[in-house]
Amino acid sequence: MKFCSSCGHPVESRIPAGDNRPRYVCTHCETIHYQNPRIVAGTVPVWERKVLLCRRAIEPRYGYWTLPAGFMENAETTEEAAARETLEEAMAEVSLVGLYTMIHVPHIDQVHMFYLAHMTSPRFGAGEESLEAELFELDRIPWDDISFPTVRRTLEHFVEDMQRDEFPLRVSDIRHRMKQRSS
Amino acid sequence: MKFCSSCGHPVESRIPAGDNRPRYVCTHCETIHYQNPRIVAGTVPVWERKVLLCRRAIEPRYGYWTLPAGFMENAETTEEAAARETLEEAMAEVSLVGLYTMIHVPHIDQVHMFYLAHMTSPRFGAGEESLEAELFELDRIPWDDISFPTVRRTLEHFVEDMQRDEFPLRVSDIRHRMKQRSS
Repeated sequence: MKFCSSCGHPVESRIPAGDNRPRYVCTHCETIHYQNPRIVAGTVPVWERKVLLCRRAIEPRYGYWTLPAGFMENAETTEEAAARETLEEAMAEVSLVGLYTMIHVPHIDQVHMFYLAHMTSPRFGAGEESLEAELFELDRIPWDDISFPTVRRTLEHFVEDMQRDEFPLRVSDIRHRMKQRSS
Repeated sequence: MKFCSSCGHPVESRIPAGDNRPRYVCTHCETIHYQNPRIVAGTVPVWERKVLLCRRAIEPRYGYWTLPAGFMENAETTEEAAARETLEEAMAEVSLVGLYTMIHVPHIDQVHMFYLAHMTSPRFGAGEESLEAELFELDRIPWDDISFPTVRRTLEHFVEDMQRDEFPLRVSDIRHRMKQRSS
């Protein structure tokens, strides 16, 4: 952030009065521009003990397999976001069972939430951001070509939990070494 | 949002190619400025069957009783945010038991998450944003002076769940009639 989105003048990074961390503050109108983590919402779409994955048609991780998921939009709930992304990316309609994993990724300011979901029919397809979609038996999941750590961890939990047919909420973190950031 | 935070030129609201909803797009550098919901994280701090509330020293809802909670910051987890807010607002150290309520408030683009938490000692106090803090017996909760609907709902669940000593995750929404928005 270099300019104030309210008045267009330059911002500077400083700790506002009464605060304890640096914020972008407008040098002209004094507006404080807070920055906050974003939620990525998705599903584990299940049909007859198979899980629906889609292969990414966009960067990052073009060509890798992923669970349908994406950034939550304003004015929706995490459930609505998860179901919407599943329809957009895998062209599948789902009925959500419940929140299944919540994985913090603090070094990129994200919280990933995956809902366990039953597909309401065996219909699916490749949405605009997918090269293809496919239902995988659990022993055929393409572990070598998974898109992101949160997707891998969620699938690992799912395979394990399918054995006892219990799917408790699992909250965890993924922490990488700090990268240089620019914003 | 009126100006591009990257280059300072005016933005316009339009639907970018390949998208399906209006975004603020810079008329000069074409940067798309996405806007996403924010997470409010807090706790239900418990000490010997009493719950710790604090009375707000800031607007909105100055003077009303609340659970300690606030906006999650970049580079932290929801648990860290919840514990930090509890320390800042109620000067209490807590050990988190688990995620207890997740309440979507889509008309204000927020997701509120409260963790059930044990106070690690009976020490507490009024942080900078609080007028006072107090441990309440469950039959003395000041229901007429509660700050926000998500706090009220979380406390209602807590009082009910204390009777059977089981605290399952409760996911719900609070939807108000649509207000006029400006941004």
